Amino acid sequence: MKNSTYLLVFLSFAIIACKSPEKKEKVTPEKEKRKLTSYVNTFTGTDGPGNTYPGAVAPFGMVQLSPDNGLPGWDRIAGYFYPDSTIAGFSHTHLSGTGAGDMYDLLVMPLNSKFTESLTKEGDYRPYSKFSHDREEASPGYYSVDLLSSGIKAELTTTERVGFHQYTFPKDDKSQIILDLGYSLNWDKPMETKITIEDKQTIVGYRKSKGWAADQRVYFVMQFSKPFDKAQLFNKSKEIKGDSITGQFTKIIAHYKTKANEQIKVKVALSSASINGARKNLESELPHWDFEKTVEQADAAWEKELSKITIEGTEAQKELFYTNMYHVFLTPSLHSDVDGAYKGADGENHIAKDYNKYDTFSLWDTFRATHPLYTIISQKETEDMIKSFLSHYEETGLLPVWSLAGNETNMMIGYHAVPVIVDAYFKGIPMDAQKALEACIASANEDGRQIDLYKKLGYVPTGEHHENWSVSKTLEYAYNDWCIAKLAKDLGNFDAHREFTKRAENWRNLYDEKSTFFRPKDDKGNFISPFSAKEYTKEFCESNGWQYFWFVPHDISGLELTVGKEKFAAKLDSMFTYYPEKNDKLPIFSTGMIGQYAHGNEPSHHVAYLYNEIGQPWKTQEMVRKIIKTQYSTKPDGYCGNEDCGQMSAWLVFSSIGLYPINPAEAVYSITAPTVEAATINLENGKTFKITTENQSEENTYIQSMSINGKPINEFTIKHHTLMLGGELHIVLGPKPNEYL
Amino acid sequence: MKNSTYLLVFLSFAIIACKSPEKKEKVTPEKEKRKLTSYVNTFTGTDGPGNTYPGAVAPFGMVQLSPDNGLPGWDRIAGYFYPDSTIAGFSHTHLSGTGAGDMYDLLVMPLNSKFTESLTKEGDYRPYSKFSHDREEASPGYYSVDLLSSGIKAELTTTERVGFHQYTFPKDDKSQIILDLGYSLNWDKPMETKITIEDKQTIVGYRKSKGWAADQRVYFVMQFSKPFDKAQLFNKSKEIKGDSITGQFTKIIAHYKTKANEQIKVKVALSSASINGARKNLESELPHWDFEKTVEQADAAWEKELSKITIEGTEAQKELFYTNMYHVFLTPSLHSDVDGAYKGADGENHIAKDYNKYDTFSLWDTFRATHPLYTIISQKETEDMIKSFLSHYEETGLLPVWSLAGNETNMMIGYHAVPVIVDAYFKGIPMDAQKALEACIASANEDGRQIDLYKKLGYVPTGEHHENWSVSKTLEYAYNDWCIAKLAKDLGNFDAHREFTKRAENWRNLYDEKSTFFRPKDDKGNFISPFSAKEYTKEFCESNGWQYFWFVPHDISGLELTVGKEKFAAKLDSMFTYYPEKNDKLPIFSTGMIGQYAHGNEPSHHVAYLYNEIGQPWKTQEMVRKIIKTQYSTKPDGYCGNEDCGQMSAWLVFSSIGLYPINPAEAVYSITAPTVEAATINLENGKTFKITTENQSEENTYIQSMSINGKPINEFTIKHHTLMLGGELHIVLGPKPNEYL
Repeated sequence: MKNSTYLLVFLSFAIIACKSPEKKEKVTPEKEKRKLTSYVNTFTGTDGPGNTYPGAVAPFGMVQLSPDNGLPGWDRIAGYFYPDSTIAGFSHTHLSGTGAGDMYDLLVMPLNSKFTESLTKEGDYRPYSKFSHDREEASPGYYSVDLLSSGIKAELTTTERVGFHQYTFPKDDKSQIILDLGYSLNWDKPMETKITIEDKQTIVGYRKSKGWAADQRVYFVMQFSKPFDKAQLFNKSKEIKGDSITGQFTKIIAHYKTKANEQIKVKVALSSASINGARKNLESELPHWDFEKTVEQADAAWEKELSKITIEGTEAQKELFYTNMYHVFLTPSLHSDVDGAYKGADGENHIAKDYNKYDTFSLWDTFRATHPLYTIISQKETEDMIKSFLSHYEETGLLPVWSLAGNETNMMIGYHAVPVIVDAYFKGIPMDAQKALEACIASANEDGRQIDLYKKLGYVPTGEHHENWSVSKTLEYAYNDWCIAKLAKDLGNFDAHREFTKRAENWRNLYDEKSTFFRPKDDKGNFISPFSAKEYTKEFCESNGWQYFWFVPHDISGLELTVGKEKFAAKLDSMFTYYPEKNDKLPIFSTGMIGQYAHGNEPSHHVAYLYNEIGQPWKTQEMVRKIIKTQYSTKPDGYCGNEDCGQMSAWLVFSSIGLYPINPAEAVYSITAPTVEAATINLENGKTFKITTENQSEENTYIQSMSINGKPINEFTIKHHTLMLGGELHIVLGPKPNEYL
Repeated sequence: MKNSTYLLVFLSFAIIACKSPEKKEKVTPEKEKRKLTSYVNTFTGTDGPGNTYPGAVAPFGMVQLSPDNGLPGWDRIAGYFYPDSTIAGFSHTHLSGTGAGDMYDLLVMPLNSKFTESLTKEGDYRPYSKFSHDREEASPGYYSVDLLSSGIKAELTTTERVGFHQYTFPKDDKSQIILDLGYSLNWDKPMETKITIEDKQTIVGYRKSKGWAADQRVYFVMQFSKPFDKAQLFNKSKEIKGDSITGQFTKIIAHYKTKANEQIKVKVALSSASINGARKNLESELPHWDFEKTVEQADAAWEKELSKITIEGTEAQKELFYTNMYHVFLTPSLHSDVDGAYKGADGENHIAKDYNKYDTFSLWDTFRATHPLYTIISQKETEDMIKSFLSHYEETGLLPVWSLAGNETNMMIGYHAVPVIVDAYFKGIPMDAQKALEACIASANEDGRQIDLYKKLGYVPTGEHHENWSVSKTLEYAYNDWCIAKLAKDLGNFDAHREFTKRAENWRNLYDEKSTFFRPKDDKGNFISPFSAKEYTKEFCESNGWQYFWFVPHDISGLELTVGKEKFAAKLDSMFTYYPEKNDKLPIFSTGMIGQYAHGNEPSHHVAYLYNEIGQPWKTQEMVRKIIKTQYSTKPDGYCGNEDCGQMSAWLVFSSIGLYPINPAEAVYSITAPTVEAATINLENGKTFKITTENQSEENTYIQSMSINGKPINEFTIKHHTLMLGGELHIVLGPKPNEYL
């Protein structure tokens, strides 16, 4: 393991020792337990298709301070790819687990003469330092690496809004710290950047960039613990005299003479709104220069998040579970300053009054399990996220689809802020419900997303466009419409209830009795030919007919009836056994294949649980265990597909403790056999809900019996409100299915 | 091991089987021995500071067809760095083991829609494919890798002047093969490039570039085994209509529809002189499309080179030995076409009549052991290399210092073509000796290299220049002068003999009795202060006072007398025990440290053998074994410093068999204890010279007795002419020094 388990175990004892020197006798075995953060491998997902980053971030933090290999491409879309050997520097913003090549703001890199003398090109050539995983450590909120080309040790930690660097230099008269605002990768491109030297320890400025986020703004205040001897300002490789520079590719080199092992620290506070906002964030969150203390605080913040669900099980299970818990709390990202200011999706600055404005919502992914998980263990954040949705609605007239750093990117499909809102509403999360309904209805009527045709025809017709995704849109719109209908009914808007209840049936319009799949239609109502359900065609979003067949989460029994009971069951079996043929071309997104089931992408995520809906719960139990065993690990390539802002991880967290929301807006969880011995959900209302097992082992895959608070149950579901009351779900396991349960 | 040992063992049997199907009974155990090429790990030196490349090259071949990671920097100066995960393509020229960031001509890369769909940036962004060492193989003359981002398998082989690619594509309508003349790395920069489409299977053109070689020209003819469907021509990212394009950054994309597992082959013939020269090279060397046959022929050519010295020993010793033998034959590079035409250092085309013109002479490195080794086993090539020196002299008025691809780079110091010539002359290699002497004298009087001051003052004075290397120049000039004196005397030029004999004493002018080191002087004759022999200052070329102290190879006894016998011996001991202190700043070149001895750079290379000169041969025996054991392996980071065009390897080859030329122009080899059981030098005159040992083991470090052809000897030297007569040097080893030998 490359993460700093040992360091943090050490820190853990250090904290105990510092905090209660008078209570030595109280160091009980309980206290000697490993900290939960020590189980997290922040490198999981940095190899393979996971696309995560290993750097320092606070839970839901604005800053994601992480090493950049400095190379473009899909593999390094989060800045860092485990197989690489280069570090170009440490930038302050990164996306976790996405396929979007954006962010990478404010690259900081220390250099010295050993490094610069070894360079082979002059001018604006980027220096790549060599590094080795042997000399790299990371844990939640902390990252450290030895830059082998310079001999400089780099350490990173962070508060929510302020990145904190600590560089340990060798003796050298030509040490440097560079801030490069011109650095960009992939879709990101700086448009206007500015650096102003306030004094020999303080620089301020901004980086405005265009990329997947069309108008991203990062204002910053950067402080150095030691005054620099001199600083040079550049635009690209052209040096400019004076104390301030504006240009597309600005850069500052701060020069130092360093003694052996001299540490120079750097704080970089961010804001989407203004330099003054960044300054306030700095003053409020990180007024001191105590690096170790900041590491401890970041670690403590993570310990608190991870403690929301604790498990009993093997050490390996804990590593897997808490590593996934960690990824659940990386995104969305805090977007507002300590005073509430943030750059809105309309390009104006706004104030988030009495709440944290979040952004970076990968909703097509996260409405499925991540947001439902937040409704259990992150209710305050859920409330603020919905406020964030509604402020986005106020700014743009629509709910976010895939919003990023104060921008709507319109990536992916659906209006999946709707199920998040509706789920939260029925789970009792406070919100302005009338406005939420208004926002949902407005988003469901945005013609730009082919909703005009959907309303006219009852489905989205196929078209010429490379990715018209017509079948996927039809199915997802219909599900979102069901959610709106439900909310409208509860709020007494019966017209809307009627309209959206009807729209919720639109999935039926693309069902093809002949192929027994959902099949694309043209605008005349004709099914298109040829059609093969296993082909990845433009009508299916990153998927095929097999994978989208199951997306009627609001009416599984209706779908079952439509197809026929036996056929539906047979089809579900085939989903997991009908493998692509050798020469079938699979797209980059179709990974983690078990038959046609692709755990590497979201449309499949609820499918293993559908056996619970057709009276074959033992197959859910088998398949979920198989997916956990074959598609997850804590190795760097431990995710079989993009981690996707918490969704791959939320699936694992739910499934490990035996729960999953098939319909993410129904306030009910489907039950399967937990893989862990026991789990305790420490609810924010002060209560705890336990999930306990009997006869837990790898062989004992099957549920023999279940009880809630001692009372036997035989339905494979549990209501959200039952969980919230606290109590215990007890599950007895055995080696053979109990078909009579 | 990642190289294709198995493939080649298989090929080996296949060749036997094909060639003599009627002689099945002749497959004796002798023939079942592993081929020597199967011992070579072409990845050795691709990690760490070795700076070698793993691609396909014929012995001394013009083409070095090898994968490029596509990243700049010191680590990847040979195009490829083992820790990396990217492949940008396969370019046709690379330097082996140098610190010079040049070549990388004619990058070829196959792509397809799987790859291009995964790209994150449009336009002239370079696509990097992922690759894995698990799916990579190489052996002498062959390299293969699976490009994981596209699913295309790439295989490379080569003749001397024609690179041969074989790409195995998956089924795809959008397969591509790209030739990118605009691609460059490090110091290299394209100036003018041209591509002309002759027909759907043939393109021709050139790439003229500026870099370390100020005027490099690569003309080419490229043939595709299958006509492309269409081709697009670009300058940078701008597409140009028509069949021909000239510009700084030209590129062609050939488009194909490929069936599953369809192979498309590409041949790229090079010439420094003209397109027609490249065409003749292609017609002469590779008129067919048989890839496997070309792999076999390249393998056979390597087997022949490696067979020049065969050893008995452990399998690990054979891997180390033959891997180093392999690196000895990579450079210099063939520079003339099949018709003798080549681009000269004067910018004009010339014809090499009846010889192969070689270039890429890293003489500061290779005069020490590489060229002396060639005088034993590559006499024809030595003859042609000296002809190549003299043609360079005719073109420029000077012998080459560090010549590259028809250019003088003037890198490093000295006029070390001189010892190569003089060594070869006294070893009986045919040459135009009068012209050679004339060229040596001319080179020794080139004022541009501070020889004016050297002649005036008797030393090169220190100066302001960052790298004036004054001490190193003085010592190396004096040695080169001694060589000239020797040649002049033999040719009856007694004036020159007198003059250069005097100059050969110039090393004495920088000897400082107080510090007992060679010490920089200013032009007034004052030693400069402060002076610390362990400091790496500008007067020592990539070295310090300790490392250069020993560079009087022509007068070790004179140096010993000057310092004093006991002091000299004590100093030699200190050389290997006086380690740099923790905070001493070592330059990038000072690696492989044993005390102040730096095996990673050349000035140290003869030092361990100096114990032989002062009557303590057992210390040579100890130290040489220690260096072999600690500074060499066949792992990717198996060299402790730049491999340097064969010099690091030639040291290992000589030392493993118990020989080393302390004075590289003296036709005498110093003797140490071989590490191998026995070695057979298969001389080109048909004779064999054997070196055999008794009691060989790791513990039996010390020579107990020696005999040549049965006759006991007690001098630790053997003359070149003795070797050439054939015979046997027999060495008896034991665990304790025999101080009375």
